[in-house]
Amino acid sequence: MDQDIIIKRQRKLIEAIQKAPIAHSMGFIGLSYNDKGDAVLDMPYNEEFDHALGEIHGGVFATLLDSAGWFSVAPYYENWIATVEFNVRLLEHVKGKDLQAVGRIVRLGTYLATATMEVRTPQDGKVVAAGSGTFAVTSAKTLF
Amino acid sequence: MDQDIIIKRQRKLIEAIQKAPIAHSMGFIGLSYNDKGDAVLDMPYNEEFDHALGEIHGGVFATLLDSAGWFSVAPYYENWIATVEFNVRLLEHVKGKDLQAVGRIVRLGTYLATATMEVRTPQDGKVVAAGSGTFAVTSAKTLF
Amino acid sequence: MDQDIIIKRQRKLIEAIQKAPIAHSMGFIGLSYNDKGDAVLDMPYNEEFDHALGEIHGGVFATLLDSAGWFSVAPYYENWIATVEFNVRLLEHVKGKDLQAVGRIVRLGTYLATATMEVRTPQDGKVVAAGSGTFAVTSAKTLF
Amino acid sequence: MDQDIIIKRQRKLIEAIQKAPIAHSMGFIGLSYNDKGDAVLDMPYNEEFDHALGEIHGGVFATLLDSAGWFSVAPYYENWIATVEFNVRLLEHVKGKDLQAVGRIVRLGTYLATATMEVRTPQDGKVVAAGSGTFAVTSAKTLF
Repeated sequence: MDQDIIIKRQRKLIEAIQKAPIAHSMGFIGLSYNDKGDAVLDMPYNEEFDHALGEIHGGVFATLLDSAGWFSVAPYYENWIATVEFNVRLLEHVKGKDLQAVGRIVRLGTYLATATMEVRTPQDGKVVAAGSGTFAVTSAKTLF
Repeated sequence: MDQDIIIKRQRKLIEAIQKAPIAHSMGFIGLSYNDKGDAVLDMPYNEEFDHALGEIHGGVFATLLDSAGWFSVAPYYENWIATVEFNVRLLEHVKGKDLQAVGRIVRLGTYLATATMEVRTPQDGKVVAAGSGTFAVTSAKTLF
Repeated sequence: MDQDIIIKRQRKLIEAIQKAPIAHSMGFIGLSYNDKGDAVLDMPYNEEFDHALGEIHGGVFATLLDSAGWFSVAPYYENWIATVEFNVRLLEHVKGKDLQAVGRIVRLGTYLATATMEVRTPQDGKVVAAGSGTFAVTSAKTLF
Repeated sequence: MDQDIIIKRQRKLIEAIQKAPIAHSMGFIGLSYNDKGDAVLDMPYNEEFDHALGEIHGGVFATLLDSAGWFSVAPYYENWIATVEFNVRLLEHVKGKDLQAVGRIVRLGTYLATATMEVRTPQDGKVVAAGSGTFAVTSAKTLF
């Protein structure tokens, strides 16, 4: 695929995430793409999303994994993509730390794409959650 | 297991969820247990957790599935349990609707428990997301 | 959908499984459909598929789960369907017992279908493995 | 952990797989460990495990993924480990080809281990299936 189109779409997605209410409420508006084209999402620690024992709730890792996979795959399609399913492995308990999620494309099919995703705590480089998911190409045109 | 102890622990968990910051920020403080002992979580629609297209983000369903499984299994153990992994199937796009998650116990082992979970939109009764997960018994005593 | 067509296709699939080499080598040629339209697969115990400790290998449960989901969903589509992904939960160790797998449809979409599946040991009625999966409608016409 | 003990256990497992009936019936008795300590399983094409359309059945990939994860993790524990759950992503249809599965350790905990696994067709280097899984340490002593 034309690399210029991919990079242009990545730039549009970096703007688009600013329009996503959840990215603001949970605080992962910081989207970038690394040299390999993987989506990188940064989420500063926000105590509002802790569970009752004061650690970060599993749903936060799930949200970041889903989003990192989605943003990695999305630039490769003209139409809107939708998450079909994903799995979440919680590898470490995390208390009061910033998180960074990275997606990696496994397969880009005509109708379905597959990605693997990881969440790290960048201050110590540990992988704290991991997963993989399936994304379907919808008939809806993207907004951008 | 002694049914009275289970019911007592369920009551403690209904109080405990009030201390979970994420239950307040996302709005699923409404926990109850049905006749079968399944945890039922109610989350009124909150536009802050929509994605850029104005539908509810997949991470919300994931958070509810994880929590519904956790709260279904937790009363059966003296110690704190921790989610090991779970999977999330997003069956319908949902726009502007209340959500209700229900867990169901599949297996209660000595060290590991398994549950399946569903999220419905109660106003039309549709199952909009489903999943299953593994929960491990930790060495930490519960707070209650 | 026309119930007569579904039943006709189920009959064709009961014949078609006889042409599947793996159904013969592993011994799950016994396919039927119950009143709810769920596919039911029977596999008599075959010691050739034990692991080194003399119990049934996890791959056998996986094969049955995949197949039970596939055969439950397949009658609802004119074209051939393909398993996209599935997960496998091994709930009990099983030694020397017959197995029965049952699929259950969760969602039948235009391009994607979802099912949950269980494997039981019919002699004692225990659920010994469980899972769920995604199946995609391909462009290939079915053979039957 | 003492690297000599790990290598010794890997050698024992290479012998032990010869005692697994399924490794013979499906033909994946060829186990080795690469420089990184990942288990590598080779399975020559065997038409007996094709589905009705003459391609390799999804259950074969599942069996190899489960086994590759298991054999990667097993040398790190004194006791027998048991697969708790795993997921299977079928990325390509495969017809008449040899398969090679490789496991990779993600986390080695006291009671639970996590691995990711891939199946390739070595003649063209394609990744045709991928997955990840959880393995629990049991109270049973290993045979070796």
